[in-house]
Amino acid sequence: MNQHLYIITLGVRDFAKSYKFYVEILGWKPSDSSNDDIAFFQAGSVQLAIYPREKLAEDAMIPSKGSGFSGITLAYNTRSEAEVDETIKELKSKGVKILKEPQKVFWGGYSSYFSDPDGYCWEVAYNPFFAFD
Amino acid sequence: MNQHLYIITLGVRDFAKSYKFYVEILGWKPSDSSNDDIAFFQAGSVQLAIYPREKLAEDAMIPSKGSGFSGITLAYNTRSEAEVDETIKELKSKGVKILKEPQKVFWGGYSSYFSDPDGYCWEVAYNPFFAFD
Repeated sequence: MNQHLYIITLGVRDFAKSYKFYVEILGWKPSDSSNDDIAFFQAGSVQLAIYPREKLAEDAMIPSKGSGFSGITLAYNTRSEAEVDETIKELKSKGVKILKEPQKVFWGGYSSYFSDPDGYCWEVAYNPFFAFD
Repeated sequence: MNQHLYIITLGVRDFAKSYKFYVEILGWKPSDSSNDDIAFFQAGSVQLAIYPREKLAEDAMIPSKGSGFSGITLAYNTRSEAEVDETIKELKSKGVKILKEPQKVFWGGYSSYFSDPDGYCWEVAYNPFFAFD
């Protein structure tokens, strides 16, 4: 198994709501391969997909039941602290729930978190040690 | 917010066990930026990280409690159906829990799922419509 992650799929409870969030609020463009109950967003070499939660669990052949923290976070890196502030300010103005206001963190960065409609946690962070491609 | 996902972090309950899983069983190589409680694996343009679950929740300022299906799946795409079979066969021989045996799926692909130590679901799939970079 090569060291590659191709797709991360978020199981969503309300597809239309999540679609609107990723397309209209984050401003992401779905791939042509998207259809009525799955949407793909090319996000670098990895694709982020949204798909109904029940169907995703069914595909993996596991119970769909689950609650609380998913245990997984997604991160968007910025090129400056100011960009973290601006991103969060913009999301907040669009009604996005902010979990953590931008602040300095112990590892030397500056970070913030927001929540998507299903409570999946997105970190927006400036990491001075992060090497962009 | 550009259309890019930089890091996905899995909150793990037993860091040493998960580290062993990703390094020894999947055979992935951690980045130099890894340390005693976080490991990064460059997986294309996205990094997969593992970090203690409690600390991850603390970082996002949310309760760490959670149970059942995380709601998120990760996918590894192969170039043939045979590669799905071989990958799953090898993982099974190493004691990895297989959630779904390789099988044809309704969208025209051939897919299987295994579980990591925390129950995070990895799909191994051949998708004849998937465009590799």
